[in-house]
Amino acid sequence: MSSQKTSTICAIATPSGSGAIAVIRLSGPNAFSIVQKIFVSKNKSSINNQEPYSILFGEVIDGKEVIDEVLLSIFKNPKSYTGEDSIEISCHGSIYIQQRILELLISNGAVLAQAGEFTQRAFLNGKMDLAQAEGVADLIASENEAMHRISIQQLKGGFSTELERLRTEMLNFAALIELELDFSEEDVEFVDRTALQKIVEQLYQTIKKLIDSFKLGNVIKNGVPVTILGRPNAGKSTLLNALLNEERAIVSDIPGTTRDTIEEILNIEGIPFRFIDTAGLRNTSDEIEKMGVKRALDKMDKSAIYIYLFDINTLSISELEEDLNQLNSTVPRIILANKVDLVGSDILNAFKNTNINFLSISAKNRNNLDQLKKALTQNVNLKTSKNEIVISNIRHFEALKKANEAIERVNNGILSNIETDLLAMDMRDASHFIGEITGNISNDELLGHIFKNFCIGK
Amino acid sequence: MSSQKTSTICAIATPSGSGAIAVIRLSGPNAFSIVQKIFVSKNKSSINNQEPYSILFGEVIDGKEVIDEVLLSIFKNPKSYTGEDSIEISCHGSIYIQQRILELLISNGAVLAQAGEFTQRAFLNGKMDLAQAEGVADLIASENEAMHRISIQQLKGGFSTELERLRTEMLNFAALIELELDFSEEDVEFVDRTALQKIVEQLYQTIKKLIDSFKLGNVIKNGVPVTILGRPNAGKSTLLNALLNEERAIVSDIPGTTRDTIEEILNIEGIPFRFIDTAGLRNTSDEIEKMGVKRALDKMDKSAIYIYLFDINTLSISELEEDLNQLNSTVPRIILANKVDLVGSDILNAFKNTNINFLSISAKNRNNLDQLKKALTQNVNLKTSKNEIVISNIRHFEALKKANEAIERVNNGILSNIETDLLAMDMRDASHFIGEITGNISNDELLGHIFKNFCIGK
Repeated sequence: MSSQKTSTICAIATPSGSGAIAVIRLSGPNAFSIVQKIFVSKNKSSINNQEPYSILFGEVIDGKEVIDEVLLSIFKNPKSYTGEDSIEISCHGSIYIQQRILELLISNGAVLAQAGEFTQRAFLNGKMDLAQAEGVADLIASENEAMHRISIQQLKGGFSTELERLRTEMLNFAALIELELDFSEEDVEFVDRTALQKIVEQLYQTIKKLIDSFKLGNVIKNGVPVTILGRPNAGKSTLLNALLNEERAIVSDIPGTTRDTIEEILNIEGIPFRFIDTAGLRNTSDEIEKMGVKRALDKMDKSAIYIYLFDINTLSISELEEDLNQLNSTVPRIILANKVDLVGSDILNAFKNTNINFLSISAKNRNNLDQLKKALTQNVNLKTSKNEIVISNIRHFEALKKANEAIERVNNGILSNIETDLLAMDMRDASHFIGEITGNISNDELLGHIFKNFCIGK
Repeated sequence: MSSQKTSTICAIATPSGSGAIAVIRLSGPNAFSIVQKIFVSKNKSSINNQEPYSILFGEVIDGKEVIDEVLLSIFKNPKSYTGEDSIEISCHGSIYIQQRILELLISNGAVLAQAGEFTQRAFLNGKMDLAQAEGVADLIASENEAMHRISIQQLKGGFSTELERLRTEMLNFAALIELELDFSEEDVEFVDRTALQKIVEQLYQTIKKLIDSFKLGNVIKNGVPVTILGRPNAGKSTLLNALLNEERAIVSDIPGTTRDTIEEILNIEGIPFRFIDTAGLRNTSDEIEKMGVKRALDKMDKSAIYIYLFDINTLSISELEEDLNQLNSTVPRIILANKVDLVGSDILNAFKNTNINFLSISAKNRNNLDQLKKALTQNVNLKTSKNEIVISNIRHFEALKKANEAIERVNNGILSNIETDLLAMDMRDASHFIGEITGNISNDELLGHIFKNFCIGK
C-alpha cells in the first residue's frame, strides 16, 4: 500500500436486494477491532483469539439493541483475499439489516470501499497480478461457458505465467546485448546475429498468437455478431423476438458493451450471439433508404455470420436470387424461408428445386427454430484447446500490439545492424508493455481506470 | 424429520443476480460427501477432517474443469442452523457460476430446497419453535426499524417464552382440576373457585394484551394508513409523488400486502406510512360521483390519520369550512394548504386569521414537506417499551383470539358451576391454541402453509 495510513474498508459483497442471507465484507488493519465493538459472540470469545479461517456465531449490536444474529468468517493477514485482516459478516438478507450493519461499521471507523478496492488491495499486497485481478472482474461478469473458461484461466494465472516467461526472455535478451556493449571497445560479438534474430522471431510469433486470439476473445466477451437481413416484412423482428422469448431466462445485457438499441445478446448452447437487426433491404432510388441498405450491408460485412430471411409467400424465386447476388460476401450465411406455415406445397417445392440451400421456418409459430440454432452454433467454434490462452481484454490487446511493434523495431534493427544499445532499448520497451499487463509496471491512473469498472464489494 | 430418508437440500441463499460473491447453501446427511465430490481443497484436506465452524479454501471442479475458487464454511450436526451437517459455498457472484455449482450439487445427489425448507428443518430438529421460524421470515422482510424490532424479538424467542409460560399455566390449571375430578366422589374442592377465577382472569388479561398489540403490530407490518382527501385538482397526486420521489431510495412494496394500485408505502423516520389516494371530494348530485365520495369517506374512517388538502388559490374560506364540516370524524387530521407559492399574502393572511389550523405547502416545489412529515410522525407512536411483546402475525392473532374464547368459556363455567371435567377440557383447548403458535401442536398442512411464504435458501 501507499505510505499513507491504510484504512479499513467495508461493503456489501452479495448482490443488491433482499435474500435469505447477505454478506458484508471488511478488510484492513482495524477490521477485528471495529467488528469487536459491534459484536458479541455467543460464547463470549473475542475475535482476536479466534483461529484464522474460523467462524464465530453471535449478535451484531448497536448499544443495547440487537440488530441481527450473524456468522463471522475470520481471516488473518496475510492469509486472506486482500492479504489484510478481513472479516465477512453473514447476516439475514433484509436490506434494512444490511444497511444498519454497514452504517454501524462506518460509524465505528470503517470507510465504504470503492469499486474493486478489495481486489486492488489484493494486487497491491502481491496476492495476485493485474491480469489476474482483471480475471476476477471478468469471472464475475461471465455469463456463458466460453467467457467463464477464459476468465477462470486468467484468474488462475495461466496468462500471467506466459507473460512472465516472455518478459524474462526479453529482459535476458536486453541484458545479454547490453553486456556485449560493455565490451564494445573490444569489438566482440557475444551472440551471432542469426541466433538473436531467431529469439526475436519466436517472441514475435508468441505475442502475435496472443494478439490474434483477441478476435476470438472479443467475440466471446461481446458476442458473435449475427446480422439479420431481409426485405421489409420478411419477419426479421418476429424472428428476433421468437429467439429472445424462448431464451428469455438466459438473455442479458453485457455491461460495458456499446451497441445499438436493436442489438440483442442471446446465449445459445453456451455461446453468446449478438443479433443485429437491420433496416429492410430494398432496391430503391430513394437516397435515405439507400443509406439504410448501405449500413445493413456494412454490418453484414463486419459480422461473423449473417441471416438472410425472406417471406416465401411474397418473394419470387428470381427476386430471391437477385437479393442473394446483391449480398455477395465472404461472411458465412444462413438462408431462412419464413412463414412456411402459410405457403402451399407447390410453391415450397419450387423453391426446394432450386440450388439455393435454405431452412424453412415459421418465426411466428416458432417452428424449426432449433434447426436455426443448430446452424448458428455449427458456424461458430469458440472451443479453445485445453491450455490455449485467449485474451479478451482490450487493454491487454493494445499492450501486446505495442510490445510487438517494439519487437519489430528490434528485428529491423538487427537487419540494419543498428547500434546494440538501441536494440536493447527497444527490447526493454517491449518488456515494459508486457509488464504493464501483469502490473509489474503500473501507475495510479492505470489502476484507477482498471478497478473503477469492478463492482463494489470485490 | 419424517420417517422417510432425509434428503440433502441445496439453494442459492444470497439475493438473485450478479455480485462480488454469492453463497450456496447445502444441508442434510450427505452434505459433506456431495461437496467432497466436486471440491479440491488447496491443502488437499478432506471436508470430513475439518473442525466444525471452520473455513476451507479450494476449487469447485466438474471433472477436470475448474468452475471457481471458493470458500467452504463447514457446520457439523447438531451445531448448525438446520441441526444437520451443512456447508455454505462462497463463490464468485456470477450468475453462470452460481448455476453451474447448483447444477453440480444436484447432479451429485442434492435436491433443490423448497422455499423455507432450511428453516423448516431447523424447526423440525428442535433448533427453534414455529413463532421463531416465522420471525426469521419477518426479519428478512423487515424494511423499517419498527418491524425489525418486532421480528428480531420474535426470532430471539421473547414471544415464545411468554407463550410457553402461558401454556404451562393452563396445563397446570387443567391438571389441578382434573386431580380434583379423581377425588370427586369424596366431594373435595382442592382449590376454591375464587382463586381459580383469579388465575383465569390473569390468563385472560395477558392474552388480551397480546391480542390488542396486533393493532399496532399490523400497522407496523403493513404501514400506518393515511388517506389523502381533497377536491379535484387540489394536488393530491402531486403531493403523493413529491413525498415518494424524495424518499424513492427507501420506498418499496411490502410483499403479501393486498392493496389498491393507488396505495403507496413510504418510510418516514423508520415508520412505514401507507398513503391512500382517493377520488376527489365534491358535493355532487351525480350518483356515480357520490359513490366515489362515499368510498373516500369510508377509507378516511379506517385510516390512522387523514390529510385534507386544498388549493388555497381556488377554494374560498367558506368552502373550506364546508368541507371540514363534511369530514366530521374522530380520525386525527392534517390540513394542508397547497400551492401557497402562487397565492397573494392578503389571501394567505385571511386564511390564517380563521381558527383553522393548517400547514402551508407547495407540493409541486416540495416546499414544507418536512413539516408535513413531522406532523405525520408526531401523530404516530410505534415505539414499544423495551420488553413489550407486539404480535404482527395474523395467524398468531387468530390463535390468541381462539385461546381467549376458550378462557372465557372456562370463566363462565366457573360462574355457572359446570362440571370440573368440562372446565378442564376448555382450558386444554386454550393451551392447544397457544401450542399452535409455537408449534408444540402442528400438522403438515399448517407447516406447508407457513413455510411456503419463505424465500428459497432460508
